Amino acid sequence: MKLVIIGAVAAGMSAASKLKRLDPSINITVYEKGKDVSYGACGMPYYVSGEIESDQDLVARTPEAFRKKGIDLHLKHEVTHLEPGNKEIRVHGLENDTKFSATYDVLLIATGASAIRLPIEGSELKGIHTLGTLEDSRRLHKVLREETIKKVAIIGGGYIGVEISETLRKLGKEVTMIEQEAHVLPKFSSMVGETVEDYLRENGVELLLEERVEKYTGTTNVEQVHTNSKTVDVDLVIEAIGVRPATKFLEKTDIDRLDNGAIKVNDAMETNLEAIYAAGDCAAYPHKLTGELAYIPLGTHANKAGRVIAERISGMDSRFQGVIGSSVLKAFELEVARTGLTTEEAKAFNSDSITIKAPDRSGYYPGATPINIQVTYDLETCKILGVEMVGEQGVAHRINVAATAISSGLTAHDVSQLDMAYAPPFSPVWDPLQTACNQIKCRK
Amino acid sequence: MKLVIIGAVAAGMSAASKLKRLDPSINITVYEKGKDVSYGACGMPYYVSGEIESDQDLVARTPEAFRKKGIDLHLKHEVTHLEPGNKEIRVHGLENDTKFSATYDVLLIATGASAIRLPIEGSELKGIHTLGTLEDSRRLHKVLREETIKKVAIIGGGYIGVEISETLRKLGKEVTMIEQEAHVLPKFSSMVGETVEDYLRENGVELLLEERVEKYTGTTNVEQVHTNSKTVDVDLVIEAIGVRPATKFLEKTDIDRLDNGAIKVNDAMETNLEAIYAAGDCAAYPHKLTGELAYIPLGTHANKAGRVIAERISGMDSRFQGVIGSSVLKAFELEVARTGLTTEEAKAFNSDSITIKAPDRSGYYPGATPINIQVTYDLETCKILGVEMVGEQGVAHRINVAATAISSGLTAHDVSQLDMAYAPPFSPVWDPLQTACNQIKCRK
Repeated sequence: MKLVIIGAVAAGMSAASKLKRLDPSINITVYEKGKDVSYGACGMPYYVSGEIESDQDLVARTPEAFRKKGIDLHLKHEVTHLEPGNKEIRVHGLENDTKFSATYDVLLIATGASAIRLPIEGSELKGIHTLGTLEDSRRLHKVLREETIKKVAIIGGGYIGVEISETLRKLGKEVTMIEQEAHVLPKFSSMVGETVEDYLRENGVELLLEERVEKYTGTTNVEQVHTNSKTVDVDLVIEAIGVRPATKFLEKTDIDRLDNGAIKVNDAMETNLEAIYAAGDCAAYPHKLTGELAYIPLGTHANKAGRVIAERISGMDSRFQGVIGSSVLKAFELEVARTGLTTEEAKAFNSDSITIKAPDRSGYYPGATPINIQVTYDLETCKILGVEMVGEQGVAHRINVAATAISSGLTAHDVSQLDMAYAPPFSPVWDPLQTACNQIKCRK
Repeated sequence: MKLVIIGAVAAGMSAASKLKRLDPSINITVYEKGKDVSYGACGMPYYVSGEIESDQDLVARTPEAFRKKGIDLHLKHEVTHLEPGNKEIRVHGLENDTKFSATYDVLLIATGASAIRLPIEGSELKGIHTLGTLEDSRRLHKVLREETIKKVAIIGGGYIGVEISETLRKLGKEVTMIEQEAHVLPKFSSMVGETVEDYLRENGVELLLEERVEKYTGTTNVEQVHTNSKTVDVDLVIEAIGVRPATKFLEKTDIDRLDNGAIKVNDAMETNLEAIYAAGDCAAYPHKLTGELAYIPLGTHANKAGRVIAERISGMDSRFQGVIGSSVLKAFELEVARTGLTTEEAKAFNSDSITIKAPDRSGYYPGATPINIQVTYDLETCKILGVEMVGEQGVAHRINVAATAISSGLTAHDVSQLDMAYAPPFSPVWDPLQTACNQIKCRK
């Protein structure tokens, strides 16, 4: 049996390693367009800032380590075509410009996603960066240490934009963040966005909200960013406006994809085509709450999906239990997290939400700080549909209590009654999540 | 309707306050033996250490505040007898030595528990303390600031013993902890006990394990603690060997109690006698995993049970969903937590356990420290039965993810597949709990 994997980062390599452990007899070939494998992309802002010393620290396993395990790994090889009828792919060796075909019994598409570039005037100027790959982060790491780079504009106030704003402030840059929506972190409720905005401003980030970037100007390098109402002088730009599934090579196939190009998979990680799996940032996963496919490109899903595929190929009946929209980020000293649906996303349900502020630990214990919590729930069933939290401490793991409760279909009353561990240095006697649930009225 | 509550700390006063909010027309009378109400007993070690400045900081609400809400609160009034047939109690006013009877329509027994004293020779000597009440903590706070108190022995290495050892070291005392079991924290697995012992020793606590205290000697004050093999010179002793439900006044009634005196209640917090509820440290609650009654005296249960009683009296069908054995403590800079059953307690099930060590955050992120995790699971159903964790950070809230999973009946595979929020500063891409569950083999 010959498994071919396209893409050697989280989904691809977690499937490859797990399968080699489960069944060493399976022949595994991996083609990777870039030169890096199996790296923790989420750590890149902290490498760029210098908090993580070396780009190699982000690499979970080297190409040599994979090869030692018997995985046939080809770097700088781009798969350009798929012919599902013949179970064949066309490969382009980028280093020596070779082209060849290869066949598979089973194929895993794990090509990830690429950073979206703004298609505007001046986008060809030098000094406009993205942060999608390890190679991107190396370039940024280097250029941000140049004396001449003082003013940086971040286009987009999402996860990456907010994280990299902290990086840039740590490196002493003047930072302007430009977001076209009314608030940063548009995938959160405005309660969270507003809290984070206060924090960004306190930390010296200039915010331009509801501003659309229309063009860049400069001679060789970008020198100005022009929005619909302002001109911002810059030495460097980082575009962080989202990612697009790297699935263009599938355009001539019948593989089912969402409008943005994400490959549709079921809970077995199967595409609509026989013997073809997809996983990672190129795929759209079943959402446990909406029942629909959701494009939420995160390393956690990639790793879980890769593992499920390996287990299935080895004969187990593993299933991916679906995504529910959990994520967390650090914004300077603020922890920002969500799980389930936001109030906005939950409008398809007969839902309501409640927002409270509660201390992260016993109010009398030194160092207590407030957490803002928004809980969205189904008015009929009283099930928790979503939770958002923001605070200086005690948020990042607490959100996973909510994630577990939502995954398990718990009601507000169930959460109130959970036997949670308590001691004054860590929590009030009613955990903040329970305090919020205690105030929800729709008890079944 | 007249509700009488015996005891004015967590269970009693949470029931009283909640009920006054739900139904202001109900007549509520509270008799409290001591002079303090509604205080956070779990915070006492941090008041004794001086980290919390005032004993009043531990008081959630003053007697005056309760009285303002229309609650008829009598301090220094001990209830000495219960006559369920007449719905009558006998009360002893301790201040003026008055004795009187009072009737109730509904009674809530919330008398709490008292610290167990060692019944040995010399126990009448001065300088032997316990830490059960706010008054105890005031005495300790004062005496520990005396110059002459240098050497302190703690009898018992449970939660309170370990917490107070940190307090004593912060106050510069020489500390000897004497525990009769093989390890400190005998309610945890030995993996946890051993980790905590290393930590206690590193922090200057001398440990005497498997030593039984046989007598105290001294002239007026305790001067020596004699164990089965050693004599320890001391200036002060703190006994922390556990608590006993304060239910001696019920001995002549037919109220059902466990052998230790804890009042048996069902999930409606009802005793076997009509119109009598019990809650807090004097009661034994249904355990969600074993189906049996468990005596686990903790403030979290007291608050939940008090709230359930208030809701029931006001006409709602609230139920206490049961305890599962969750707890957490701080031992110097170590976080120590458990939920569900320990490996030992789970022996009634066809169970096994797995122990792993994993970093609390991405290994490449600065400041990562290891967490030891032991997961106990049912070999037939693969459901998680218990989790214990110990580490310097990331334990106290993570244990509540496990508590939620156990409460919801999740299997190891379910936990592996949970959509947990991830970012490198907070967790590895597979949360340590998931890494442990990934290694559990009994997949259904």
